[in-house]
Amino acid sequence: MDALLQLDHGSEVPLYRQLYEHFAERIRSGELGIGERLPATRELAGSLGLNRTTVAAAYEMLEAEGMIAGRVGKGSFVTSATVAGELAGRGPASQRGVRWGALLERSETAPTSTALGRETISFATSWPSRELFPLDEFRLSCAAVTARADLADILQLGSPAGYEPLRRYLLAEAHRKGEAGAADDLLITNGCQQGLDLVGRVLLRPGDAVAVEDPVYPGLKSLLTGMGARLAAVPVGTNGMEIPRLVRVLERERPKLIVVTPDFQNPTGATQPLAARRGLLEAARAAGVPVVENDPYSELRYEGQPLAALKQLDEHGGTVLLRSFSKASFPGLRVGWVVGPKPLLDRLRHAKEAADLHSDQLSQAVLLEFAESGRLEAHRRRLLEAGGERLRVTLEACREFLPPGTRWTRPEGGMNLWVSLPEPLDAGEMLPRAQKLGVAYLPARYFAVSRQEPGGLRLSFAGLAPQQIRDGLAIIGKLAAAELASAHPSGEPAPAMV
Amino acid sequence: MDALLQLDHGSEVPLYRQLYEHFAERIRSGELGIGERLPATRELAGSLGLNRTTVAAAYEMLEAEGMIAGRVGKGSFVTSATVAGELAGRGPASQRGVRWGALLERSETAPTSTALGRETISFATSWPSRELFPLDEFRLSCAAVTARADLADILQLGSPAGYEPLRRYLLAEAHRKGEAGAADDLLITNGCQQGLDLVGRVLLRPGDAVAVEDPVYPGLKSLLTGMGARLAAVPVGTNGMEIPRLVRVLERERPKLIVVTPDFQNPTGATQPLAARRGLLEAARAAGVPVVENDPYSELRYEGQPLAALKQLDEHGGTVLLRSFSKASFPGLRVGWVVGPKPLLDRLRHAKEAADLHSDQLSQAVLLEFAESGRLEAHRRRLLEAGGERLRVTLEACREFLPPGTRWTRPEGGMNLWVSLPEPLDAGEMLPRAQKLGVAYLPARYFAVSRQEPGGLRLSFAGLAPQQIRDGLAIIGKLAAAELASAHPSGEPAPAMV
Repeated sequence: MDALLQLDHGSEVPLYRQLYEHFAERIRSGELGIGERLPATRELAGSLGLNRTTVAAAYEMLEAEGMIAGRVGKGSFVTSATVAGELAGRGPASQRGVRWGALLERSETAPTSTALGRETISFATSWPSRELFPLDEFRLSCAAVTARADLADILQLGSPAGYEPLRRYLLAEAHRKGEAGAADDLLITNGCQQGLDLVGRVLLRPGDAVAVEDPVYPGLKSLLTGMGARLAAVPVGTNGMEIPRLVRVLERERPKLIVVTPDFQNPTGATQPLAARRGLLEAARAAGVPVVENDPYSELRYEGQPLAALKQLDEHGGTVLLRSFSKASFPGLRVGWVVGPKPLLDRLRHAKEAADLHSDQLSQAVLLEFAESGRLEAHRRRLLEAGGERLRVTLEACREFLPPGTRWTRPEGGMNLWVSLPEPLDAGEMLPRAQKLGVAYLPARYFAVSRQEPGGLRLSFAGLAPQQIRDGLAIIGKLAAAELASAHPSGEPAPAMV
Repeated sequence: MDALLQLDHGSEVPLYRQLYEHFAERIRSGELGIGERLPATRELAGSLGLNRTTVAAAYEMLEAEGMIAGRVGKGSFVTSATVAGELAGRGPASQRGVRWGALLERSETAPTSTALGRETISFATSWPSRELFPLDEFRLSCAAVTARADLADILQLGSPAGYEPLRRYLLAEAHRKGEAGAADDLLITNGCQQGLDLVGRVLLRPGDAVAVEDPVYPGLKSLLTGMGARLAAVPVGTNGMEIPRLVRVLERERPKLIVVTPDFQNPTGATQPLAARRGLLEAARAAGVPVVENDPYSELRYEGQPLAALKQLDEHGGTVLLRSFSKASFPGLRVGWVVGPKPLLDRLRHAKEAADLHSDQLSQAVLLEFAESGRLEAHRRRLLEAGGERLRVTLEACREFLPPGTRWTRPEGGMNLWVSLPEPLDAGEMLPRAQKLGVAYLPARYFAVSRQEPGGLRLSFAGLAPQQIRDGLAIIGKLAAAELASAHPSGEPAPAMV
């Protein structure tokens, strides 16, 4: 069995999950029959060079689904070839039923967010601090909306384009900032993620390539690969997506779309200077490829001057801008928007209607009230102050606590920065030990497109209080230093990793 | 030009839109050059046998998009080959830019809802009456949620599975009703429509067939065809989806899914008796095909005894149940749910996360409060009373006002019934004249899968007050009688339409 068991350490699918899939498939196929014994966790972990908890997690999943059962002191045994023993497919062929296992093998599993306890200091999620939510201002906005005479209109079925008063407000704002012209329209979505999903539905077919930043956040990778798109990696440097590399990707891989976050890219925090933005637009125009400007963060600039959006710089109508209320207000309210050329927006509106009719109108109305009343802007100013402090504290703590040889990015805004631990450290391998010490982060494999960087990890700092940031980085730094010391007991050089 | 101009009267794409596409394509391709004159609306309408307003609507769209301009007394002239003259694609080849027209031809346009003025008596939308919304009870539920100590959790990024307290509540309800077993799980979606979308994403590939009711509501048709699925039509009779026909479709077209609404089907209002439900499950099980039970209406039964859901009857784990708060409370709040086998729900949750991270949590929390406080059930009882009256009034008005030879269905609940006008009346052709008289409905072509029924139309009665229903049906009846009289001036027999 072990000969067949090849785990992909670079995959975004966690190792325990890969292990689970390996056994589940062999049980379903009958290769492992009912009553057969699985290898002991300790033995399997040893032979595969895995942590024993990884193997135990895979076995727990199999057990939870009723495929194996453990007997104390005896090991784990196959009990059923189907999940929970209740799904169809076990009867004689004449009583077939739905074979979910076979049906579902046609679709890929995407990674899900890391689930963590409350006590953990988690740098793992790019979200705002719940302690900073302006709850009273939110309550006032809610109360104002529910007191309105047109409340029934908000509660009735709405337009796929969005709640019209909010749509008009956002479109006027976009015109005012020069981010929408006469040829543009605006569609409300459930956050930037749905904006990407709709653009993909309309413009992509399975097998199409999409130029994306490398590294890039998991939600984009899983969305695009779930659609059957190929990811064409363009490295991100200090100045964001690297334009010469983009030009080469456009020539060689003929992508159908470019997806880019010019401000405070997720995960690196990198920002494209104006010249790079112009270069990107020029390259895209020459290739005739649309640009999706995925911009959840630009409103959260803590230092430096704001830069014009690609959508504002583009004079050729090739850019689609995605924005959201999530990062600068309340992520639990799913409201974002798309600005772009009318013919495209017409199609996106149809795709939106097919997907879920329209976005939730209560939240649209509440966020409009929150914005029009000036509360959003007041909250944003507080977020800028707090975010700036958190960013400074993060950078200071990196200097203070991370071992020599560690590099990190220096964002001017947003929620994330990227740390590269010195070789031979592997941030993914180190993670379970960090979690035991009460700290979590996402290692590079969640973000990798083509480029593996074992020492890389993302620090999402915006959701944590300054003291938590310091405490968390002190733990990471101490752990990294210890592992570094034990990796070089005799001072031998680290092996080349690239 | 007219030789090339073939309009499809049976298409779900409205005629004006087909006409618009015809000219837009010829203008973009250069076949119609800048400065060329389009045929006069009256002349074109005459030669195509169309209403002049249909042609005028197509020209208005072209004009709104800057492709043509009208000069008084002179006609309409081509002004630009691109929408609003601002999109790229007009420059020399070396300055290509994005050719949106070419890119977008790769995706199909789905029909959108009919937009109507407030004064019209509209039977066109299957929605609840806004006048019946319990606004004070809604305000109380909102206030209770915003007063809660865990408000910040509701506002923070949530789980793709849904707001956990609501998820637990709905799963407990499903267990209580026997609609969920130990092998099942529950996922919150943005209404039934997103439930269908997620199931399709996970289980369908382009080219797959899906067995659907014929006629069926446009949202399902456009969703499935947008995914590249083929619709395998199963006729709906008095007892809902006809089982012998389903068996034949399963054999011949090998669909990957069956989508069915056993209670108060949209558009016919038909309900499957228990024997038909058992027959459907048996046929699906024998073929190994999953059943999607799309059930937005079963809570709205005005008479007769409730019947067990397919999900409850199915002992083989092959059914997925879709439910929603929309029809029995507030459609503007987009909250529904899916109940089904855990392995499938696991994939649906990943698809949900890729699509839009999770459903809006404010509305999830408000609807949970609305349900747990007993306000939802109290509102449902009022809806049952009002809906029962509206249904009775609709059936009475059909008898009183519709011309002899008209047939209609007799639903026991839900929001819709189906009218078949006598030959040679065409409900689609009649619609513009009905709208001029202040009444709207959706004609059969919006619902047709394979079966054309020119005399068919859907009456969505739940959103209208009893007097509006009577007034509207009186207008439809008078118009139909007049058209019937003018169609048979000499008493000649109606031509066969099938």
